[in-house]
Amino acid sequence: MDTKLLGSPFSPFANRAELALKLKGVAYEYIEEVKGKKSELLLNSNPVYKMIPVLIHKDQPVCESMMIVEYIDEFWAVNGPVILPPDPYDRAQARFWAKYVDDKIPTPFRIVIGLLPGSKEDAIQEIQTTLQLLESVLAKCSKGKAFFGRDTIGYLDIALGCFLSWFKAVEMMNAGVNILDEAKMPLLAEWANRFCSDDVVKEVMPEPNVLVEHAKKNAVQAKEN
Amino acid sequence: MDTKLLGSPFSPFANRAELALKLKGVAYEYIEEVKGKKSELLLNSNPVYKMIPVLIHKDQPVCESMMIVEYIDEFWAVNGPVILPPDPYDRAQARFWAKYVDDKIPTPFRIVIGLLPGSKEDAIQEIQTTLQLLESVLAKCSKGKAFFGRDTIGYLDIALGCFLSWFKAVEMMNAGVNILDEAKMPLLAEWANRFCSDDVVKEVMPEPNVLVEHAKKNAVQAKEN
Repeated sequence: MDTKLLGSPFSPFANRAELALKLKGVAYEYIEEVKGKKSELLLNSNPVYKMIPVLIHKDQPVCESMMIVEYIDEFWAVNGPVILPPDPYDRAQARFWAKYVDDKIPTPFRIVIGLLPGSKEDAIQEIQTTLQLLESVLAKCSKGKAFFGRDTIGYLDIALGCFLSWFKAVEMMNAGVNILDEAKMPLLAEWANRFCSDDVVKEVMPEPNVLVEHAKKNAVQAKEN
Repeated sequence: MDTKLLGSPFSPFANRAELALKLKGVAYEYIEEVKGKKSELLLNSNPVYKMIPVLIHKDQPVCESMMIVEYIDEFWAVNGPVILPPDPYDRAQARFWAKYVDDKIPTPFRIVIGLLPGSKEDAIQEIQTTLQLLESVLAKCSKGKAFFGRDTIGYLDIALGCFLSWFKAVEMMNAGVNILDEAKMPLLAEWANRFCSDDVVKEVMPEPNVLVEHAKKNAVQAKEN
């Protein structure tokens, strides 16, 4: 198969790449990377950052989750729905807010799930502040549409949506925590429900309870080491 | 005029946006932002990051230097040379390495010119390590071409090239410092000379001695405050 994805079902970044492949109807081989044991293929394909996801297409590696999404959208331009909107201004906006998601969410997210040291409460607060701003972005650009500025799942939906299973897992693990508070972010909460009930999304996104098990196992391993 | 650029001649990030406009032959109004006094227009146009450059096109703001470059390339697609290569894989590579430049250079660069605290020697070393890797990227993709993978100035050339005036200014201010060492990085040194002798680049990029004066004035002001 000339399209391979190096990923992990537990990585929201890998989920992004996989979701883009499935939305475009691209056949691919999934190669799961196991945490803590970087494969030779990964090290050779992404020698700069040594991180998943990596898309290997016709033996050429493409790295960085949102760049992979954009590559998939460009290479398989005629397949399925467009991921980046056709209008240059809408594209610039989608890229801007996807970068905002990547500037603001991964670090506190890693703190919340215990991959980085820090105050979990502060990190959850930080994520909520980011989501509050995205609620206003959605209000401005949705105009009655189901997703960010459009009727189908696009670039910014993928960027943000792939964190939703983990947000739910964190809520399950922390009684009383409500990351995506429906009362404060009604539009985003509805958007999240729509995103998660999409059939293609369901194929890709891990169930929150699977993530809870995974997180517990990681915590036990971390204590043993 | 329906195209405005909020920038500063001393900002390599603003230089990127201006260079893209000039390469594409787009007429625009330049609005200079003065350091330390953010204009209402800037605050309203980029409320998230409150930073230059901002391109305001038909009253719609586009933020983030490399996203502005991509917007210009897409909106004025039929004007002048293409900035992003047409092939999806080449585009992904250009985006990857431009992001690498932005991951690795701005922070040590700000330390070197005194905008952030830290060891200047370490910061210069960090920039040189990054440039060493880019030397190998250039070796791999140049194949006798004048710029990164092609005959005309493109996305990655703009991303990296706009730091060159500042690198020279830093060398002028620090006797014995040779950021872009010709002996260690012969291809990159030749590339830099070609980039800086391009007529459009010359119109945009500040002279190193102007930057030296600017840096000295800033240092005096910093001491007075």
